[in-house]
Amino acid sequence: MSRLRAALDPKSIAIIGASDNPNKIGGRPVAFLGKFGFRGKIYPINPTRPEIQGHKSYASLADLPEAPEMAIVAVAGDNAITTVEECAAAGVKVALVMASGFGEVDPHEGKAKERRMVEAARRAGMRIVGPNCQGLANFGSGAVASFSTMFVDMERSQNPGHVAMLSQSGALSTVPVGFLRERGIGVRHSHATGNDSDVSVGELACAVAEDPEVKLMLLYLESIPDRRYLEELSSIALDRDLPIIALKSGRTAAGQQAAQSHTGALANEDRVVDAFLAHHGIWRAPDMRGLVEATELYLKGWKPRGRRLVAISNSGAVCVMTADAASSVGMPMAKLAPETDSKLKTILPSFATTTNPIDLTAALLSNSRLFGDILPVLAQDPAADAFLIGVPVAGPGYDVEAFSRDAAAFAEQTGKPLVVSATQPSVAREFSARGTTVFPTEVEAVTALNQFIHHRELMETTRQRRAARGTSYPLLQKPAQTTMLNEADSLALLASRGIPVVPHRLCLSRNEAIAAFTAIGGPVVVKGCSADIAHKSELGLVKLGVSSADAAGELFSEMEAIIRREGARFDGVVVAAMAKGRREMMIGAHRDPVFGPVIVVGDGGKYVELLRDTQLLLPPFVDADIREGLHKLRIAPLFTGVRGEAPMDIAALVNTVKLIAELMRDEAAGVLSIDLNPVMLNSEGEGCMVVDAVVFRSG
Amino acid sequence: MSRLRAALDPKSIAIIGASDNPNKIGGRPVAFLGKFGFRGKIYPINPTRPEIQGHKSYASLADLPEAPEMAIVAVAGDNAITTVEECAAAGVKVALVMASGFGEVDPHEGKAKERRMVEAARRAGMRIVGPNCQGLANFGSGAVASFSTMFVDMERSQNPGHVAMLSQSGALSTVPVGFLRERGIGVRHSHATGNDSDVSVGELACAVAEDPEVKLMLLYLESIPDRRYLEELSSIALDRDLPIIALKSGRTAAGQQAAQSHTGALANEDRVVDAFLAHHGIWRAPDMRGLVEATELYLKGWKPRGRRLVAISNSGAVCVMTADAASSVGMPMAKLAPETDSKLKTILPSFATTTNPIDLTAALLSNSRLFGDILPVLAQDPAADAFLIGVPVAGPGYDVEAFSRDAAAFAEQTGKPLVVSATQPSVAREFSARGTTVFPTEVEAVTALNQFIHHRELMETTRQRRAARGTSYPLLQKPAQTTMLNEADSLALLASRGIPVVPHRLCLSRNEAIAAFTAIGGPVVVKGCSADIAHKSELGLVKLGVSSADAAGELFSEMEAIIRREGARFDGVVVAAMAKGRREMMIGAHRDPVFGPVIVVGDGGKYVELLRDTQLLLPPFVDADIREGLHKLRIAPLFTGVRGEAPMDIAALVNTVKLIAELMRDEAAGVLSIDLNPVMLNSEGEGCMVVDAVVFRSG
Repeated sequence: MSRLRAALDPKSIAIIGASDNPNKIGGRPVAFLGKFGFRGKIYPINPTRPEIQGHKSYASLADLPEAPEMAIVAVAGDNAITTVEECAAAGVKVALVMASGFGEVDPHEGKAKERRMVEAARRAGMRIVGPNCQGLANFGSGAVASFSTMFVDMERSQNPGHVAMLSQSGALSTVPVGFLRERGIGVRHSHATGNDSDVSVGELACAVAEDPEVKLMLLYLESIPDRRYLEELSSIALDRDLPIIALKSGRTAAGQQAAQSHTGALANEDRVVDAFLAHHGIWRAPDMRGLVEATELYLKGWKPRGRRLVAISNSGAVCVMTADAASSVGMPMAKLAPETDSKLKTILPSFATTTNPIDLTAALLSNSRLFGDILPVLAQDPAADAFLIGVPVAGPGYDVEAFSRDAAAFAEQTGKPLVVSATQPSVAREFSARGTTVFPTEVEAVTALNQFIHHRELMETTRQRRAARGTSYPLLQKPAQTTMLNEADSLALLASRGIPVVPHRLCLSRNEAIAAFTAIGGPVVVKGCSADIAHKSELGLVKLGVSSADAAGELFSEMEAIIRREGARFDGVVVAAMAKGRREMMIGAHRDPVFGPVIVVGDGGKYVELLRDTQLLLPPFVDADIREGLHKLRIAPLFTGVRGEAPMDIAALVNTVKLIAELMRDEAAGVLSIDLNPVMLNSEGEGCMVVDAVVFRSG
Repeated sequence: MSRLRAALDPKSIAIIGASDNPNKIGGRPVAFLGKFGFRGKIYPINPTRPEIQGHKSYASLADLPEAPEMAIVAVAGDNAITTVEECAAAGVKVALVMASGFGEVDPHEGKAKERRMVEAARRAGMRIVGPNCQGLANFGSGAVASFSTMFVDMERSQNPGHVAMLSQSGALSTVPVGFLRERGIGVRHSHATGNDSDVSVGELACAVAEDPEVKLMLLYLESIPDRRYLEELSSIALDRDLPIIALKSGRTAAGQQAAQSHTGALANEDRVVDAFLAHHGIWRAPDMRGLVEATELYLKGWKPRGRRLVAISNSGAVCVMTADAASSVGMPMAKLAPETDSKLKTILPSFATTTNPIDLTAALLSNSRLFGDILPVLAQDPAADAFLIGVPVAGPGYDVEAFSRDAAAFAEQTGKPLVVSATQPSVAREFSARGTTVFPTEVEAVTALNQFIHHRELMETTRQRRAARGTSYPLLQKPAQTTMLNEADSLALLASRGIPVVPHRLCLSRNEAIAAFTAIGGPVVVKGCSADIAHKSELGLVKLGVSSADAAGELFSEMEAIIRREGARFDGVVVAAMAKGRREMMIGAHRDPVFGPVIVVGDGGKYVELLRDTQLLLPPFVDADIREGLHKLRIAPLFTGVRGEAPMDIAALVNTVKLIAELMRDEAAGVLSIDLNPVMLNSEGEGCMVVDAVVFRSG
């Protein structure tokens, strides 16, 4: 941890506004630093007392024997501002500002106060964490500079564990800690950064990711105002194989509204957040449970090789529910080898089930060795990628201790992921005590196992592809002005980039329209062309199936009249071939203010907004990324050809998407958004073709 | 409980194969009957001992002073059969057979043994529960005739509670009991019926539903071999306002396969199970958690009036996540009245949020009265249907006891549903102790609350509609033979029932085809007609857009040749109008062997199987049921008309679905399946029209 070291592992900490009462905001950090074994210097600052919680107290920063590396600003309101200015002047490296009442309550005056502090800090080379910040807690270094209630009844443990939890929110930086502690899992870092006026949760995460003791990082985010630190974090994490799970709230409109009243959070488009996190190998947890539930699995060091599950239970019903749960999340039940089956048959009673899931039945009650006997057989089966042992009921008569020993030995032997589901606390305790991860039901066990395996796959894919993907696309300044290109210009721009567009001519007179008909060959489409009119159909400016040159000429005049009547600029009339295709697709692109260019691809046609069979793709991407996106569409089964049809030309569609992405990367082109619908998709070898295009440009 | 009284509340119980060891199968029921206060006579039968667990033991049934109402058959294998025969002869009312090794392991010989027992019982008027049955446990009467390990460390409680849990599976009859017990919720009935050779879990459920002390019934089902008892159960339950939650496993192909190896369970089509349970007001739980998680809410006696949620927390992040969770499941955040907002503003500090969700911020730490002060204000808001209080972190400095008292008083005052989310066990305990239902996270709280409210709505709707729906449709005997009608006959059958079909003529000669063209007016569709050919397109037997009489005549000859070349019966050629429609829909119908006629309605066209935008409807139904089904389609937004389009004629579609259902009800018509695709749906007032039809009939 070289960067932000003074925030995570300072040599000295001053507490400005220190209190002798360990339950006051200014008292808690003093108490925590002592309790959690901070090895550096502790300097309480309080002019009214000679001593604070057993430490010598100082009247002011100036009285300290040295400039502290970190200063905790535990004074309230505007006093915090002057204190921060004093810290900057005194040579403090990091000021941690706990006071609230800044940007989170007042987006104007409050933010201005924050800026004042940050400017003072910048001038002096000091960093600020906060304000409105519950504090940073590094249990590895003992630097627990926090006033969290959660740490009050927490003991200092010998091993602080390997999990890091970061959040702007104070509550959310510690609630997961509570969850994990109940399961006996230590959290080494628990940081709440508050308003992120200077050091953001993303920057801090980059620093924490460099702590070699951190083996799993959990993030709670309400807003992603800047992509850069998350990109860097992803890169650090992939390099050192550190899994990151993010709970990004504000998924729904109601949630975003609440986030806005909470912290004035910028609303991110949720599907873009999904795509961005996945693109960077970060697992997105749907909720608090999803954030913490699989933690133990990540800490085991397993390298899963596949998703095929083997389930073993003494209850047939649990076997059924496990198979349901596994196949619902996309984990197939492993098909065991014939030799495995024969071996199992020699061990299990005749009424047990030797196919996977394996139902030991209540026979386990009379023969406790069944478990230990079948596990080595299963361990050898090449189809078994992961295991679930379900013990819904056991008790007097069952040798649960032996089961748990056998399971632990088995996990050790195979090195493959193993989870246990056990509802009864007495049973769960036995398995937990021997290091096996236990969930109350098979659904929770399968969900966690699937997350872990799926996330490791995602990390692996991301690692493999990232070099080929290249660097992220530029963000454009918000343009002062935007211009819609007319259809002819839109098509011409696309064609100039090698994107296949429908054969067409822009006609500026009736005679040109007649000539165009002859050149293209009927029937044709005739469309009025105006950079002022986006929705042509509604005005009668699109006519399909025009089957004579005269009709084309007549339409030229009609459409010119319509456009002029609307008071719009008349750019001419487009005469185009009637393009046919197997499926009408759509491709869109826009610039997200945070994440940059976003490409949308999906089922096209008139109702694209309503039926929403679309996928988001974040460039830079490789072909496989685009193919994966297309594969997730509901209409994907049609691409391979059904009922004797030929496959469709996915390669051509992929290529078009790539060309669109390249156009969006080109800052000079200044394209703000592209809407291509329909893009006619044809059979393999026959390509695809843009029929209708609307492009917006800056300037 | 008049029916099956001897199973649930017998006056005397004999245990055949009784053991002095309370951990043996024959010993546990004796121990449980004593421990759980069975008030009737207990007759252990064991010829080798004078006394069993303190009760006088008898050598045989014949030695008892009376015929016991219930006999627990705890002897193994084929001995169980002869014992059952002896019970029948002795006048026992219910024999509960624990032995396994019957139909569950051997579908032929095992089932034959079951039949032998059932026949003996039937002759004597005795009922059989089991075999392969863990037993029945009625903690209300103390008749705990079970060998479940789960009851070993369970204390007899003064109040056995109001929940009933029924299952064929032993483990699943008790695992939920364990879950609920941990939350301090008693389970009055916990019954495992095993192989259901005579008394099925459904029949037993009907009996248990008549116990007035039961206020919530939970079912675990692996298979529904017969709909009748569930229909009756639904009826009893709706009459006395008893909610039923069913966990039906075997949702997936993998799960069904596991269920088949487990118990030889019949595979139900899962979407039909969904539709059937919903149709009968039974909530389908997705998994074990979903079965038990909302139990406390059901026992409160709340009558929810809507789904609008008010959330209050001391953490802004919890506010955001609650809004996300609620809107994801379809609970909108209540829009509070302006008066509520003004009143809240006078109570809360300026930096708190007074819009819903209400963020009290850490101000709660300094002012514990905030909670108690705002609750009465919220109670008066007419938009508030339900409440969630989220306390993710509290501890020293927070008056959690006061919060919990205020919350309990508030719940009492409003009579509206209230849930609490609290991660810390110490906080959760305070709220629980005062009778408030607590969940570890807001997602679980919202999920349970939504289930409860949604389920009460479902029960209410079902109650309102059931009279109008009428009695369920008949099941047909599996026909010895099935016949496909040719297209002309299919269309004629539909037309005879008043269903609008495309104008068409069946032509038996080239001249008739030419005449048909002239009569209908071109362009037309020409289709080869043969009762031997289901997929006409593949053979070139469908020609669209035929625009001259001559061409129609020519096609007659061509299609006749094709059909004859296939060796198929030539029934003629259909000449039909080219029907146009706004949307191609599909309507299908088939007969489910368990649930009877099933109607499928959805988006039509060539790819209906692949894109699967369909909904199942189980007749008998009312119009509102059909409209609800249509409303759930992905394409539903198109029906109301988008982008200036007119609405579509949903009334006509609903009417067609009703006519199809009536046709399926008509046993005399003997229709086995109907496949109508496309059904052209037009604008309001313009109806819909069946264009293509395939009907299968018995005989």
